[in-house]
Amino acid sequence: MAVSDVAAPAMRELASRLHVKKASMDYRELLADSTIHAVAICSSTDTHCRIIEEAAAAGKHIFCEKPIDYDLARIHEALSAVEKAGVKLQIGFNRRFDPSFAKVRELVASGSIGRPHVIRITSRDPGPPPLDYIKVSGGIFLDMTIHDFDMARFLSGSEAEEVYAIGDALVDPAIGEAGDVDTAIVTLRLKNGALVAIDNSRRAIYGYDQRIEVFGSKGSVSAGNRAPDAHVLMDQAGVHEAKPLHFFLERYAEAYVIELQAFVEVLLKDQEPLVTGRDGLQPVIMGLAATRSLREGRPVKFSEING
Amino acid sequence: MAVSDVAAPAMRELASRLHVKKASMDYRELLADSTIHAVAICSSTDTHCRIIEEAAAAGKHIFCEKPIDYDLARIHEALSAVEKAGVKLQIGFNRRFDPSFAKVRELVASGSIGRPHVIRITSRDPGPPPLDYIKVSGGIFLDMTIHDFDMARFLSGSEAEEVYAIGDALVDPAIGEAGDVDTAIVTLRLKNGALVAIDNSRRAIYGYDQRIEVFGSKGSVSAGNRAPDAHVLMDQAGVHEAKPLHFFLERYAEAYVIELQAFVEVLLKDQEPLVTGRDGLQPVIMGLAATRSLREGRPVKFSEING
Amino acid sequence: MAVSDVAAPAMRELASRLHVKKASMDYRELLADSTIHAVAICSSTDTHCRIIEEAAAAGKHIFCEKPIDYDLARIHEALSAVEKAGVKLQIGFNRRFDPSFAKVRELVASGSIGRPHVIRITSRDPGPPPLDYIKVSGGIFLDMTIHDFDMARFLSGSEAEEVYAIGDALVDPAIGEAGDVDTAIVTLRLKNGALVAIDNSRRAIYGYDQRIEVFGSKGSVSAGNRAPDAHVLMDQAGVHEAKPLHFFLERYAEAYVIELQAFVEVLLKDQEPLVTGRDGLQPVIMGLAATRSLREGRPVKFSEING
Amino acid sequence: MAVSDVAAPAMRELASRLHVKKASMDYRELLADSTIHAVAICSSTDTHCRIIEEAAAAGKHIFCEKPIDYDLARIHEALSAVEKAGVKLQIGFNRRFDPSFAKVRELVASGSIGRPHVIRITSRDPGPPPLDYIKVSGGIFLDMTIHDFDMARFLSGSEAEEVYAIGDALVDPAIGEAGDVDTAIVTLRLKNGALVAIDNSRRAIYGYDQRIEVFGSKGSVSAGNRAPDAHVLMDQAGVHEAKPLHFFLERYAEAYVIELQAFVEVLLKDQEPLVTGRDGLQPVIMGLAATRSLREGRPVKFSEING
Repeated sequence: MAVSDVAAPAMRELASRLHVKKASMDYRELLADSTIHAVAICSSTDTHCRIIEEAAAAGKHIFCEKPIDYDLARIHEALSAVEKAGVKLQIGFNRRFDPSFAKVRELVASGSIGRPHVIRITSRDPGPPPLDYIKVSGGIFLDMTIHDFDMARFLSGSEAEEVYAIGDALVDPAIGEAGDVDTAIVTLRLKNGALVAIDNSRRAIYGYDQRIEVFGSKGSVSAGNRAPDAHVLMDQAGVHEAKPLHFFLERYAEAYVIELQAFVEVLLKDQEPLVTGRDGLQPVIMGLAATRSLREGRPVKFSEING
Repeated sequence: MAVSDVAAPAMRELASRLHVKKASMDYRELLADSTIHAVAICSSTDTHCRIIEEAAAAGKHIFCEKPIDYDLARIHEALSAVEKAGVKLQIGFNRRFDPSFAKVRELVASGSIGRPHVIRITSRDPGPPPLDYIKVSGGIFLDMTIHDFDMARFLSGSEAEEVYAIGDALVDPAIGEAGDVDTAIVTLRLKNGALVAIDNSRRAIYGYDQRIEVFGSKGSVSAGNRAPDAHVLMDQAGVHEAKPLHFFLERYAEAYVIELQAFVEVLLKDQEPLVTGRDGLQPVIMGLAATRSLREGRPVKFSEING
Repeated sequence: MAVSDVAAPAMRELASRLHVKKASMDYRELLADSTIHAVAICSSTDTHCRIIEEAAAAGKHIFCEKPIDYDLARIHEALSAVEKAGVKLQIGFNRRFDPSFAKVRELVASGSIGRPHVIRITSRDPGPPPLDYIKVSGGIFLDMTIHDFDMARFLSGSEAEEVYAIGDALVDPAIGEAGDVDTAIVTLRLKNGALVAIDNSRRAIYGYDQRIEVFGSKGSVSAGNRAPDAHVLMDQAGVHEAKPLHFFLERYAEAYVIELQAFVEVLLKDQEPLVTGRDGLQPVIMGLAATRSLREGRPVKFSEING
Repeated sequence: MAVSDVAAPAMRELASRLHVKKASMDYRELLADSTIHAVAICSSTDTHCRIIEEAAAAGKHIFCEKPIDYDLARIHEALSAVEKAGVKLQIGFNRRFDPSFAKVRELVASGSIGRPHVIRITSRDPGPPPLDYIKVSGGIFLDMTIHDFDMARFLSGSEAEEVYAIGDALVDPAIGEAGDVDTAIVTLRLKNGALVAIDNSRRAIYGYDQRIEVFGSKGSVSAGNRAPDAHVLMDQAGVHEAKPLHFFLERYAEAYVIELQAFVEVLLKDQEPLVTGRDGLQPVIMGLAATRSLREGRPVKFSEING
């Protein structure tokens, strides 16, 4: 229907590629268009809450990229605005829609592995973002682990109680000098009793490494990486296969499409979104608690943050 | 730009989905449109040669689904028309564009496995087509194995010399009564010395089974099936994974897109198509020879057919 | 109990390693020992029948390495001697006792894959034997494929009807000059309707390649290679694993132990051996027929050989 | 040479099976035998230190099962006795000799993955031991995780600095009532900077689950479970493989043999044992620290324990 962007060339390119007629650098023009029923907010994080509130006030249903914000009070305000307006809000935790991860959740939810005892999440990027980005990213736990916090909640169907984080700047000392870490292990206790171990790195030289496992009383279900092709070469040196898909655009290409199809379907069928405002809020709390745990060298209860 | 179909509802549905303005039940209207530079012929096999000839005469570049025809003389006529018109023709052997198979070919072509000695191709459908289709299909070797004949040529970069086929109606006796087989093993001798074994079945209960291997003097490269997701469930009964993608629309979804992108690029860059008219002709010869081999219970040289 | 060998040092070394008291270069001394109830014949193929007959006459149960002999009349004589003496004879088709292949047979026999339609066997050695050996080996089909012929009978539980073989000296022209081939594809029609494709090579540069698959009306079961360790290395170049176990001594180490345990158990429980004299005879017939097929360039029925 | 056991029938059975002449219920008889140069101590943990000291005093080289003891002072005494006597001592951390784990260590040590950043260890038993055993086991961290503590040191080549443990009785509440946990996640900081996550469960319904991964600046190397056979069944329900080998006797059968061969070779070549007394001590310190961490809900430095 329409696109808006503060960068005019990108906006025009997108409008042309999507055969979209309306394009404006002022998103309020879109909000004012009564033929538009829903918007997707993909702008920078610091603009999310403001646009959510304006879109809600304009009666638009909202898809918003994660994180909603880094400030809990600000998130609560935005979620209140959404609730008051009675519009639907779906947060962009795209990994839930990855067919492999969705299948794992489906098997856990159906009881195939019994009661969850241990969840393991490996999440490593192929390379760190620019240092300038790191400095404003909110730190690894809010920028990167936030996806894994969401995944732990999604896979277990449970809220978390407590977090303990260790980390260091092993990939690049400059990241440490900027006050952040690039390698971390985070453990969680969930309210349903399950224990979680998440490991993160800003640089896996072999590409995007995204693996999960849920182990329970009746078995274990996991999902590994996906490769661009299924070739297997056997030669004098060994057996060789393709590296994992390089980064999120490749790995989650399917997930992004399914995520937006799900949003559209939720609107058409007047259902509850699959990733709610609360689902957007909780991982921010978890990221803030993990940050405090790392700084203070002790386990932190989420109630300390959200209290 | 435009679509044509003898089935009006399907045509209108497609035109709408592709945001295409022009739609006509008479394909000649499209051929007469000077703003159209290329056509894709996806009609029934018996119409291919005629439309190829008319499109060539109209100066259109042509993408045509396989097989071109079952009649060698008719194919030669159509290829002559294309050559005379100086237009480009690409035949729809989509599997060449599957990323896994393309990677195998790339490794063979680059010498990673040395000189090819043995090629193995497994190609099994999830279920047989309707009996009415079987009766007019030209037989399993022209309808199904034809893809594997193309694959053997593609992987090896060599023409074939001789074929021997065994087969039976093990899936459904009615297929046997219709004069066809539903299970077959075909062996080929290639001109470069390599030996090929192809096995086919009309019904793999676990889904579409598409695997290849090229074994050579310096190693072996293979490509297996792809699954809809990468989950692994371990329980008291064993370790379980998803079945292969169900059929060609799922398995070769990527390949179909890449195939047409390649056709467009060939036109834009004025290059040789990646699947030529000759590539369309040879597998038909191979299918006819395999059919004769099965009937006569002896190896058949391709020169007998094409002589 | 005792060992005999024409090579004295090897004999003494073995006797010492096994803490065996009795050792003689004349195997007849062992046959004359009434405290010995069973013998294992592991001498050169041309001595098998003679020793079988003498051991049977001496009332010993017999384990004999494959092949019994290359001469069918001679095999029939030896088997008659065994039958007349009422002793048990087990032939050394060790691969039947490999845990993976045994599991595949178990699943086929239990009906897990329904009625077998297609059997695929890949059997490749890491390197050819010395040319002097090749010259007296009886040819690839009697020396190497004989194991695969046994495997086809074992997996299917069916006799074979007809064979067609193609082959060439692609690994080493000298093997061709010696009148043999080093690369071959053999297809079989079994009496139960199943079709078989066997591919052989005398040299797989990555090691011993031993894979089987039985495909049927209700599914497919396969078994691949086994590696010395389960490591997986992911680096900038790709994902790397260990090559298959190098050759038969490594790959079938477990199978050799289980094979002899099974022989002992058969004697203790007075049961039918799991690999009978007939099981030793049939693959020789199949090897002779395959040899004729290759020479004459046509399918050969086994009844032609055994008639 | 000789065996000793407090259980006479087991002793006699073993002596007979190993063709060993000397057997005595008093191990001191063996220590007094001047023809014996080395002993393997496989008795209950509370007897280890005493027998080590007596064996050392008798000038015997010593292989001793893990753990040496749960009391650090007692371990130090025993190690001093060994040092004073100038005999060799190898501790039974068998997993180091598993071919897969040894290969992972080899690749880490050779620099294939660069500098280690993250180590993940999954170690789950197929079922908990009897409650009576649990009560005297020293707790999960000294009884079970001790192997993983050794593995972390072995894989990284680094000592550890700090531990944090979370755990619960999720498998069996009775284990909780006995003051222990049956499910745990332990994180370590190593002196070389690497971070470690270990997850344990007393009951994996699908069998013994033993997996490791070392992730570093240039890649990652892992080793998974091993199965009793390599069959793959594809049917209408999915793709199915064998469960992992059931427990340590099956999974580490090879490792136990290699471990003792290594001990013999160390003696014959007068080398440093591959698992030293210090290697026996450190994991006990780590287990004690993890136990304290769980009880006090905080990270514990190893210097607190060993100080």
